[in-house]
Amino acid sequence: MGEKNRIEDFFYHRNNLYCEGVKVNEIAEKVGSPFYLYSKNSLCSQYQEFKNAFSPLSPLICYSLKANSNLSLLKILKNLGAGADIVSLGELFLALNAGIKPEKIVFAGVGKKEEEIKEAIRKNIYLFNVESFSELRLINKIAAQLKKKVNCNVRVNPDIDPGTHRYVATGKKESKFGIAWDKAVRIFKNNSFPRIKILGFHVHLGSQILFPEVYELAIKKLLNFAKKEKIKLTIFDLGGGFPIEYEKRVPPVKNFAKAIIPLLKKLKIKIIFEPGRYIVGNSSILVTKILYLKRGFVIVDTGLNDLLRPSLYGAYHRIVPLKKSLGKTFVGNVVGPICESGDFLGKKRRLPLSLKEGDFLAIKGSGAYGFSMSSNYNTRLKLPEILVSKNRYKIIRKREEYKDIVK
Amino acid sequence: MGEKNRIEDFFYHRNNLYCEGVKVNEIAEKVGSPFYLYSKNSLCSQYQEFKNAFSPLSPLICYSLKANSNLSLLKILKNLGAGADIVSLGELFLALNAGIKPEKIVFAGVGKKEEEIKEAIRKNIYLFNVESFSELRLINKIAAQLKKKVNCNVRVNPDIDPGTHRYVATGKKESKFGIAWDKAVRIFKNNSFPRIKILGFHVHLGSQILFPEVYELAIKKLLNFAKKEKIKLTIFDLGGGFPIEYEKRVPPVKNFAKAIIPLLKKLKIKIIFEPGRYIVGNSSILVTKILYLKRGFVIVDTGLNDLLRPSLYGAYHRIVPLKKSLGKTFVGNVVGPICESGDFLGKKRRLPLSLKEGDFLAIKGSGAYGFSMSSNYNTRLKLPEILVSKNRYKIIRKREEYKDIVK
Repeated sequence: MGEKNRIEDFFYHRNNLYCEGVKVNEIAEKVGSPFYLYSKNSLCSQYQEFKNAFSPLSPLICYSLKANSNLSLLKILKNLGAGADIVSLGELFLALNAGIKPEKIVFAGVGKKEEEIKEAIRKNIYLFNVESFSELRLINKIAAQLKKKVNCNVRVNPDIDPGTHRYVATGKKESKFGIAWDKAVRIFKNNSFPRIKILGFHVHLGSQILFPEVYELAIKKLLNFAKKEKIKLTIFDLGGGFPIEYEKRVPPVKNFAKAIIPLLKKLKIKIIFEPGRYIVGNSSILVTKILYLKRGFVIVDTGLNDLLRPSLYGAYHRIVPLKKSLGKTFVGNVVGPICESGDFLGKKRRLPLSLKEGDFLAIKGSGAYGFSMSSNYNTRLKLPEILVSKNRYKIIRKREEYKDIVK
Repeated sequence: MGEKNRIEDFFYHRNNLYCEGVKVNEIAEKVGSPFYLYSKNSLCSQYQEFKNAFSPLSPLICYSLKANSNLSLLKILKNLGAGADIVSLGELFLALNAGIKPEKIVFAGVGKKEEEIKEAIRKNIYLFNVESFSELRLINKIAAQLKKKVNCNVRVNPDIDPGTHRYVATGKKESKFGIAWDKAVRIFKNNSFPRIKILGFHVHLGSQILFPEVYELAIKKLLNFAKKEKIKLTIFDLGGGFPIEYEKRVPPVKNFAKAIIPLLKKLKIKIIFEPGRYIVGNSSILVTKILYLKRGFVIVDTGLNDLLRPSLYGAYHRIVPLKKSLGKTFVGNVVGPICESGDFLGKKRRLPLSLKEGDFLAIKGSGAYGFSMSSNYNTRLKLPEILVSKNRYKIIRKREEYKDIVK
């Protein structure tokens, strides 16, 4: 390969973008554009890095399916020992299909439906992260019907502003998530639901949290609270939120581990993490073809129906050509074919002036909340997903066909 | 029905919400929640109102499929005489499947792919609304291969700020749409593409345009331009953008007609309109069930995966209970089950204090860019679509099943 010391699984070799041992351009010519491309090594490395960072806690790592629930990727993570953080019946089915054991599955979400709770109890999942009194009542009722005893964590609202995008900040008091402190006390001290075992806290502070101190603060706040209220914890589920690099550098996960581990290790309780984006985010690129060049606009064949993040969150994704050019550059807007001004992939991006219509670009960091948020808007087909492992690639989701959507 | 003089097809009768002659609650109990519900009469009335308003121009009304491309709705519109404004191969298939004649189909979009152009030419659609020189070149090449002559309009960029949301303002100079004036002149005066007939202008000023003056200004600007440059127009395609009422009152379509007709009638050229939202937007409600009530949050069983507009555009949709209550009210946030703070349907809405978990709500104005933008995010199933006509309802799209998405 030439670059033996590379740390990334997407890299240039002789000016061609590779994914592990495969030239991306070759895949593009074979499967057609656009498509999501994943590196197995990247996925596994991220998982292992996370696991290693927190190994002193021996945590249960429940991969958060909402980031990306491709079955082939789930199977890889399952083989590495991952559990699952699910938010719907569909995700329960996918996790079980991937072979993830029920005792490694935790169920989150503010809007769990009766049928979802019922099926999850029937399948004996590990626990529910509960968001309200009403939900506890419903779980208790269903558990009684099924003659089961059910584990629950109370999702507490630590009322901390993690300083992220307002749409992904979930740990603030005014958000829809979690149970307020005073109510949580009542649940712990006076559990009136005979079918429910309250085991501990669940907390999720937000996404792309850039400061380990945010976790530190939240953990301290909750442990002090437990101490003051004489609450015995068996589990502490810390959720996800660990950042990955999109545009700017972010602290490595070991910095978060360094802040978190000392606070929890002495407690000798079960620790759960729910990373999603951290595992899969940078394990994928979205490959797209340039259809037209005009007036500084690079019009490509993928848009907000395939990758919603730029339009919905104003998210930044690096965009690079499959064939590197060392010549002159220009600054352009990379936009999609959707009939909306909001359909852009990247604004004011520096790209080679040699780019032609028909050339391919790679949109980086597309593994999390990429395919999983995609739609058929403008009656467009959902993309295929391709997985590279060393020198081979395989299709892990077929391109949708018109017969699937034109019914 | 009691209310003989009702103007809307969704109305309360004895405190129950009806769609035409059917109590919505009865449908909800039968088909389960959530679902999109359409009124056939509303759809037809809107179409007729539009047609009547512009009848002095005898325009070709090409319904814009991107707003909503349900096949049953398309068939209804086809039977009323509608043509189709399409933006993809998928939409071409749907329009043809609905029985819309090729000579009533116009193809728009900045990112038309080779295969899409080819198929559209093969099917003898009426014309392409062309967005760039490169596209003209490509159409010409394909037309030559197929030994056909192809009609094109030049989409010109009138550089007018219609004063709408920045994501749906498409007629400004810095947008990705259209061809600049100076380039358009060259195309008209010196058409170097033997397989292409340039017939006229296409213009689309944006969405939810609140001032008829915006159309007036654009038309005058373009007609002066044509006069000055001695361009002979055969067609003037004015696009869409006609507003509907979401939150605030909007001018009726006849006000737009009053401004537009006098400018165009004397020209005796073919006029095309492309309404989408105007036809279907208020012909639908999204029915949803309250799962949980907590701390001023009304957690319902539909979210941004089903209706993206509030999250993506900050769009306002009225939310009303299926059972009206005249008692006390409260102000709450109606939010979905998706694990994101951005998953809301309506903020600070006044609702009856008597609302209970299990009750249903209707989210109004969901017919346009509702189902068409929906996704499987969080591995959730796409919703069914139900059509009411008088005293009957039928399912015009089945609820997706887990076997469809958990593959």
